[in-house]
Amino acid sequence: MNNNRTAPSQIPLRSFLSGLEPYAPGEQPTGANFVKLNTNENPYPPSPAVIEAIAAASKRLHLYPNPASDALRRSLAAYHGVEPGQVLAGNGSDEILRLLVHAVISKGESIAVVAPSYSLYPVLSAFFEGGTETYPLVDRERLPEELFTGPEPLLLLANPNPPLGTFYSRAEIARLCRSRTPRLVVVDEAYVDFAPRDVVPLLAEFPNLAIARTFSKSFSLAGMRIGYLLAGSDLVRELMKIKDSYNLNHLAQVAAAAAIASAEHMRALRDEIIKTRNDTTHALRELGYRVPESQGNFVFAIHPDAADHYLRLRERRILVRYFDTPLLRDGMRITIGTPDQMQRLIQTLKEIVKAKGKD
Amino acid sequence: MNNNRTAPSQIPLRSFLSGLEPYAPGEQPTGANFVKLNTNENPYPPSPAVIEAIAAASKRLHLYPNPASDALRRSLAAYHGVEPGQVLAGNGSDEILRLLVHAVISKGESIAVVAPSYSLYPVLSAFFEGGTETYPLVDRERLPEELFTGPEPLLLLANPNPPLGTFYSRAEIARLCRSRTPRLVVVDEAYVDFAPRDVVPLLAEFPNLAIARTFSKSFSLAGMRIGYLLAGSDLVRELMKIKDSYNLNHLAQVAAAAAIASAEHMRALRDEIIKTRNDTTHALRELGYRVPESQGNFVFAIHPDAADHYLRLRERRILVRYFDTPLLRDGMRITIGTPDQMQRLIQTLKEIVKAKGKD
Repeated sequence: MNNNRTAPSQIPLRSFLSGLEPYAPGEQPTGANFVKLNTNENPYPPSPAVIEAIAAASKRLHLYPNPASDALRRSLAAYHGVEPGQVLAGNGSDEILRLLVHAVISKGESIAVVAPSYSLYPVLSAFFEGGTETYPLVDRERLPEELFTGPEPLLLLANPNPPLGTFYSRAEIARLCRSRTPRLVVVDEAYVDFAPRDVVPLLAEFPNLAIARTFSKSFSLAGMRIGYLLAGSDLVRELMKIKDSYNLNHLAQVAAAAAIASAEHMRALRDEIIKTRNDTTHALRELGYRVPESQGNFVFAIHPDAADHYLRLRERRILVRYFDTPLLRDGMRITIGTPDQMQRLIQTLKEIVKAKGKD
Repeated sequence: MNNNRTAPSQIPLRSFLSGLEPYAPGEQPTGANFVKLNTNENPYPPSPAVIEAIAAASKRLHLYPNPASDALRRSLAAYHGVEPGQVLAGNGSDEILRLLVHAVISKGESIAVVAPSYSLYPVLSAFFEGGTETYPLVDRERLPEELFTGPEPLLLLANPNPPLGTFYSRAEIARLCRSRTPRLVVVDEAYVDFAPRDVVPLLAEFPNLAIARTFSKSFSLAGMRIGYLLAGSDLVRELMKIKDSYNLNHLAQVAAAAAIASAEHMRALRDEIIKTRNDTTHALRELGYRVPESQGNFVFAIHPDAADHYLRLRERRILVRYFDTPLLRDGMRITIGTPDQMQRLIQTLKEIVKAKGKD
């Protein structure tokens, strides 16, 4: 019984745990006066309707929430023009992604991902003793041709794809679904509200397409942990079996429904962020950074001294995200904040670049 | 690749899903005028400090929560007299229990449970292609002797144990931990605040003991989904690797910390519920029910016509829980509500029993 196990405190645990490298979330500083541009949060608060809905719902916390988040599923279904049975609400899209991997990947099988991308995907596969087949994005603008024919039972593709913000067209995703049928293609649209269009209309055409969404970015609700899946109702039904019985608390359910009901608030601020993103891209390029066009609420600023700039920003209490990996160590991922925050960033980078010039 | 798989919509899914019977949560009626005594919720609202903390925290929902719930872990550690590293906060104790099974049970291995008990446990094992070794509670008051020597790497034991409410002594749990060393013994203390004492002091003695707790019952926060584990810090560290990165939303973290800080509110209402439980037990026995002594916030009322009584209560908009299983179909599990609710229950049962007498 105890072969193939690791043993902290002598308790027999499964061996996969000992080799598991957990996902490293971006820093959440406790001090108040940081300019926080490191975790792709929205700098604006959610709709006041969300706060009101939470206050009203705080009166029935002693009762269990609806186990399937049914009211929220109905409101999401109407919002996207699908059936409620095609919607699965989750405790953040992280839960949605985990459930998908759990339902598909057996020990020794692999998920397919592109690189660079969201670094959580390989961790989720390892949870189920699965591996990861990585398709490098040699040409940043195009998906590698091998990805279309890969044999993995599950592909996880973020679109727009962090940390660079590359966006793939609906036609390209359709081709992916077609060529990988019947294997599952999951498009993680966490950032899609900042991009020109989503792939929801493809659901009717491709039963092997599933779309993960989150309220953490465009809807300003990272603190509430709300994500969801849009997919075929057969797949949703299977995933419902393995979610925690009450996976979404009552306040999260009502907050999400209120956010959807007041989506014009989100859209107005989203337009603001897109404008700031374009201004920031321009300003960073002026400073000598190479900045690929991003369709997310972040940009990736490439510079030979990126690692140094990251540290100097940190000293000045501006947090951005630095990934010390071969593909990414020449850049910083910078979340788009308010115009004021971005001006402070640009001003500070200007000083850093200038000081460096004098070295 | 596609052997051993089931295929809704032709998507290759793992075969274990097709046989999986999901956990059936108790009914959450949408109509308002039910007397809801079916899911062991607390009839009283949480401390006003909890509602205030939620309102205050609603101002920072655009930011991610603390990934490890560190402030809450510190407050729980102080509350229980353990180290913060011994605490793992979860999205309900359901998440905690799932993580434990995930960390221990490989395909084909089994968890150990007693029967009757919380019907979620076997479902969690099935999530990981594990089985369940069931030890029937032949003598309701004593744990079966075979349980002490069983070979399963993980034992899940609720104490008090629903739906009967049986409570096992600290000495008995100590003997269990000793005899099953180094295999993991999880004591699910969801209802322990309604019982004479917990087994937290045993943590120092038995590294193979882990304790699951919840805010859903005594703390009146079923709607918030907050649970936690108390265990050795080695085990907690391993489980942290496989939890969702941000498993507890910000409002749940602050709500739980506020509930702990105002625990005297919980204790006063808990005493109220214990008194009502004892009164209810007495009244049910007067009506002819056999009611085992319960140390939870529920009682199990045994009667040859239990199934019929359950339906007749439902017609009269009083919901209790009926389990149609061989061990339990001669009784109803009745959650302890307010004195008014219990009077309405007793009055209604009196009419039901009397009408039956006239048949």
